[in-house]
Amino acid sequence: MDMKPERIAFLGLGAMGRTLARTLLEAGREVTVWNRTPGKAGDLVARGAREASDPGEAIDAGDLTVACLLDDASVRETLAPVLRELSGGPLVNLTSGSVRQARELARWLDGHGVRFLAGGILAVPQTVGTEAASVLYSGPRDLFDRVAPVLSPVGRPHWVGEDPGFASLYDMAALSGMYGMSAGADHAVALVHAEGGDVEAFKRDVLRPWMERMLPIIAGEADVSVSVPEEYNAAMQATGLENMISTSEEAGVPAELSGHLRASLWRMRRAIAAG
Amino acid sequence: MDMKPERIAFLGLGAMGRTLARTLLEAGREVTVWNRTPGKAGDLVARGAREASDPGEAIDAGDLTVACLLDDASVRETLAPVLRELSGGPLVNLTSGSVRQARELARWLDGHGVRFLAGGILAVPQTVGTEAASVLYSGPRDLFDRVAPVLSPVGRPHWVGEDPGFASLYDMAALSGMYGMSAGADHAVALVHAEGGDVEAFKRDVLRPWMERMLPIIAGEADVSVSVPEEYNAAMQATGLENMISTSEEAGVPAELSGHLRASLWRMRRAIAAG
Repeated sequence: MDMKPERIAFLGLGAMGRTLARTLLEAGREVTVWNRTPGKAGDLVARGAREASDPGEAIDAGDLTVACLLDDASVRETLAPVLRELSGGPLVNLTSGSVRQARELARWLDGHGVRFLAGGILAVPQTVGTEAASVLYSGPRDLFDRVAPVLSPVGRPHWVGEDPGFASLYDMAALSGMYGMSAGADHAVALVHAEGGDVEAFKRDVLRPWMERMLPIIAGEADVSVSVPEEYNAAMQATGLENMISTSEEAGVPAELSGHLRASLWRMRRAIAAG
Repeated sequence: MDMKPERIAFLGLGAMGRTLARTLLEAGREVTVWNRTPGKAGDLVARGAREASDPGEAIDAGDLTVACLLDDASVRETLAPVLRELSGGPLVNLTSGSVRQARELARWLDGHGVRFLAGGILAVPQTVGTEAASVLYSGPRDLFDRVAPVLSPVGRPHWVGEDPGFASLYDMAALSGMYGMSAGADHAVALVHAEGGDVEAFKRDVLRPWMERMLPIIAGEADVSVSVPEEYNAAMQATGLENMISTSEEAGVPAELSGHLRASLWRMRRAIAAG
């Protein structure tokens, strides 16, 4: 038998927490769960989980503690009374929060001798616990190496750096990229629909193959500067964007859906102004 | 020898027009070019093009006329004096324009007995004339069948319907999808950069694989309604989006780059309001 911790204390049984805890149980982990509001653990207990009556009891039963709570404030509130119990084993926080919150949480826990790994779940609800999900972690590399095999069933583990804010940063940034694809696709479909086009044929034969072809170029060229490649005629691109925005307005597509076009137009105009 | 027209009259030698004309010449087509401002044809003549001194002379030398001009107004202005010459053979318009402009142009040309096919070039400057480019056409199907093999070197031909506005509609909508990907990726990179992350590692290891995994889901689910799939917790998604927007602001990322997030947030809020 190896020395990896396989007994997990799981704090927080919201929609995401329950899904993660169930995935860990199904992968054969020994899981003790706790939730502030009782009555959320029935399904998990039926699958073999133990239910603790308070966070300290759960933490004592695990070699590793995972928190998946509502927000940063509930993480602080839940952990403040059990910092001594936590000093025994590592804590992984999968609660959504900002980059700054993750960094401050790491400092606070470090001050209490708690070894801490920040995590960000890179998945949509349909893909949690599937091959398509990954979990970004940041913090001490040795802690990641110890924890990754235990938590790998919830998503492919990927360490993104020592900075405890990076898991949240990379997670949010990647989600932002996805929301961009989604905003573009939704607007495209709204426009085709508004002008009487065949939405399903458009999505299948035009939109998806085109976006698949362009994705490697787009993801490769994404840049923090306002410069655009030499061969781009920024003025022509700007005119094209203005045309797309006005065509959308004429078609009655809500202006809010054109946010990504306005963002791109803003960038083109900055490029033109910068010469 | 087959009966397909291979002698092409090419009107308009801007950056796009020159690229297209050169691609057709390299594919062995016989091309006669014309441009309002003289002096743009030298390179093409060196590759075997003939240069006409006016549009009528070019049209007379072709079995098929292709227009790739500045805008809709310049198409009207260029063609008005040569409508009689055009009635002999089909006209393909690859000039960028709106859906409404394409429909009105088709009516005008139809009134003068000109057989007309609308086109939209689905490519970025780097991909024109490569395997990655496609050209969307709309108008009479028999005209497309006749013209597609002749013009196939400039991009894979794809007929999208009888409505002359559809080539422009599907083209603009697909470009809008691409701009969404681009807006999302640019914002993601700006955020990672602003917080001191490793931009290249992020793009290579996190952003691109994640967007590639999500694209089929995003393109498949894109929808004109404000409904969101049952398993989405719209309120949680909205909170996540608000968090991403405020994190971007804290990081000093220009607010204009968050347009796609605001668009997605608007959609989530509509979904919540609709129950």
